[in-house]
Amino acid sequence: MNKDSYSLQEALLYSHKMTQLTKAIWKTIEKDWQRWVKPFDLNINEHHILWIAYHLHGAKISEISQFGIMHVSTAFNFSKKLEQRGLLTFSKKEDDKRNTYVQLTNEGITLFEETMNAHDPEKNTLLKASLPLKNIYGRFPEFQDMESIVKELYGEDYLDILERSTASIREEY
Amino acid sequence: MNKDSYSLQEALLYSHKMTQLTKAIWKTIEKDWQRWVKPFDLNINEHHILWIAYHLHGAKISEISQFGIMHVSTAFNFSKKLEQRGLLTFSKKEDDKRNTYVQLTNEGITLFEETMNAHDPEKNTLLKASLPLKNIYGRFPEFQDMESIVKELYGEDYLDILERSTASIREEY
Repeated sequence: MNKDSYSLQEALLYSHKMTQLTKAIWKTIEKDWQRWVKPFDLNINEHHILWIAYHLHGAKISEISQFGIMHVSTAFNFSKKLEQRGLLTFSKKEDDKRNTYVQLTNEGITLFEETMNAHDPEKNTLLKASLPLKNIYGRFPEFQDMESIVKELYGEDYLDILERSTASIREEY
Repeated sequence: MNKDSYSLQEALLYSHKMTQLTKAIWKTIEKDWQRWVKPFDLNINEHHILWIAYHLHGAKISEISQFGIMHVSTAFNFSKKLEQRGLLTFSKKEDDKRNTYVQLTNEGITLFEETMNAHDPEKNTLLKASLPLKNIYGRFPEFQDMESIVKELYGEDYLDILERSTASIREEY
């Protein structure tokens, strides 16, 4: 990583453009997500925790924090709220006393599946905004450059978990 | 936009992947940005307002809200704080009494330029994570697909403002 391999102007332009594009898209996703899960009395962090625990068939708090991109304390506190609602249980493993595992209860699984059934692609703003590209390419865009950046930022692990959760979606729908 | 032009599985996979990628990148940008402007006693909304008003040579509150992707009330309240610090002034135009315009004061311009001079690309995590792609392509990735999605989401206006602010960066650095 040679400092001289880009000019300050290039750096600023790239950084500014990425800020404006990712903020724009993330805020849209966030708003849609909130609207989607609110009827289930869930916020997006809580739904993300259910999502991760469901698709990974149980998960460590550290995995939820990493893949959910939330502080460990946020992951723990929202998991605790879900536990109090009877949607998940905490446990330790015999051979791994340091990590706390989260496992959905039957109620948690049912609630999560209800949220998935309530997902209406017609109300998914991002999806609708991506249809013109799908019409051109014949499929939704793949964003491999973004994937490669995320790999640099969060490590190979992050993409492994993404792969496991997409495999789980492929099996179930 | 034909509902049948994609399967529910495709929709979920795409939506899930975009959620994980854009959240990951946006949260990284947000964290770097906070660290960058904190020494100037600014939060990222305040800095974004200075940024927009600086590069657009004055801006309407509605433009700040649109391009900064914040509620009009957020744009107004943080602008008010900057006004109280003497960094910007509010005004109305003779021929446009409905809109409030924001104009940086000399102090605002100086402070904004100081923040830009303090920007250290070496501490910009996103930039560093994008260098492997730059080494492959010879330039930073362009993300035209993301641009096209943002155009669908926020309208041509949004990209016009992005174009004006990048032109301003090109002139000044």
